[in-house]
Amino acid sequence: MNVTLEQAQNIIKVAQAKAIEINTKMNIAIVDTGSNLVAFARMDGAWLGSADIAQKKAKTANWFNMDTKALTPLVQPGQPLFNIEHSNGGLITFPGGVILKNSSGEIIGAIGVSGSTVDDDHAVATAGAESL
Amino acid sequence: MNVTLEQAQNIIKVAQAKAIEINTKMNIAIVDTGSNLVAFARMDGAWLGSADIAQKKAKTANWFNMDTKALTPLVQPGQPLFNIEHSNGGLITFPGGVILKNSSGEIIGAIGVSGSTVDDDHAVATAGAESL
Amino acid sequence: MNVTLEQAQNIIKVAQAKAIEINTKMNIAIVDTGSNLVAFARMDGAWLGSADIAQKKAKTANWFNMDTKALTPLVQPGQPLFNIEHSNGGLITFPGGVILKNSSGEIIGAIGVSGSTVDDDHAVATAGAESL
Amino acid sequence: MNVTLEQAQNIIKVAQAKAIEINTKMNIAIVDTGSNLVAFARMDGAWLGSADIAQKKAKTANWFNMDTKALTPLVQPGQPLFNIEHSNGGLITFPGGVILKNSSGEIIGAIGVSGSTVDDDHAVATAGAESL
Repeated sequence: MNVTLEQAQNIIKVAQAKAIEINTKMNIAIVDTGSNLVAFARMDGAWLGSADIAQKKAKTANWFNMDTKALTPLVQPGQPLFNIEHSNGGLITFPGGVILKNSSGEIIGAIGVSGSTVDDDHAVATAGAESL
Repeated sequence: MNVTLEQAQNIIKVAQAKAIEINTKMNIAIVDTGSNLVAFARMDGAWLGSADIAQKKAKTANWFNMDTKALTPLVQPGQPLFNIEHSNGGLITFPGGVILKNSSGEIIGAIGVSGSTVDDDHAVATAGAESL
Repeated sequence: MNVTLEQAQNIIKVAQAKAIEINTKMNIAIVDTGSNLVAFARMDGAWLGSADIAQKKAKTANWFNMDTKALTPLVQPGQPLFNIEHSNGGLITFPGGVILKNSSGEIIGAIGVSGSTVDDDHAVATAGAESL
Repeated sequence: MNVTLEQAQNIIKVAQAKAIEINTKMNIAIVDTGSNLVAFARMDGAWLGSADIAQKKAKTANWFNMDTKALTPLVQPGQPLFNIEHSNGGLITFPGGVILKNSSGEIIGAIGVSGSTVDDDHAVATAGAESL
């Protein structure tokens, strides 16, 4: 089961609305269960550097079947996964990548959001994910 | 002047409709005048390998301010730009990348389409570009 | 539907036997429908440089839902997909990548074989694929 | 002296059994003394992102002739090898990469395992290595 393009475009629409509501400009990426890009949107004026970060957050969440914020404590100096970011052509392990689940609870991909604080990024990603 | 996200999403909508009309499944990418990704859509069942090709076609068209089909004859063996594809982290120089112009004729970015024959790819990209 | 590890390991076993039968030493890679690696084997004495080629053949076949030998004529100078190999971090478009289908005819991944002539590579890949 | 494919496939079989015994799903990679991939297996449902990590653990262990867990304290901030992960296209320096030795005590390659906690990863890699 993979997220469809129609689902992905609806998720992006919800995430964009949330981003506007909290007065931010976001890059939003949706990947399928193979971590392959399905849909992407960069809001006007959003940071260019966040386009890649949004995609890497989505891929990272899907690659490890968990929100990126669950990885954050594990990758700190002295912690078990320190410098895991050097794998897979570059991971992003701070908040903003969130797993997408269908109504049966199956993982169907992930959303990655980047463009503001990591709390804002996570909030927008969560709003998108919960719209499913 | 850059293509806006709203314009990009409308272009993708038109391109998707054209793709369905000619019975194809496409990857569609829109970049701005900096060759940075603005919006992307992979239609359900479209080739995974075409996601990167669509983005590279759009970037290539914008980097050189011309449709990728204008580059095709120039990159053949013995021709002036033979193997230019080795630059910029990889170019795609066959049809399917088309310049986007606003109503004043200014370039505002490019669209790249991949997923079928290069003629189909170019037709879908052109349909998207002409909707501006 | 993705190829399972058990299926992949059986396919490799058959492909190894075929490689021995025709007196070759092969690298054999199996990817799933997301072009992610499932299983790999390099036979003793096989070319080191073919390990990457085998993986790229499998990925290429899966990315475009066709055997790599179907791409070969299309990527020649003057043909529609000339220099497509610059996409996706490097494609291999000569024979040796073969689509894997289950008994219902659904694509479940691909096999890539490299280590001898392209005809030998394709024969070993086909032997593996047909064992499903 | 290099690990043979037969040895590598037997090591993977033992590692898979250990992974099942401790209720985990692992990616398992074997490299030779040149850090070139010999064999690989991703167990059904194992994290996709761990395929690359397993390979990098095996390569890292072999490149420096030591288990990756011996590197972990040395790569922390303020320690001698801080950020060594930037070399060689990316190292992984947490546990799960283990040197392979033959019965004469000679290094013949390395195994890398990823898919669970680093303690589980190391336990499965060790089980594989000790089966030689």
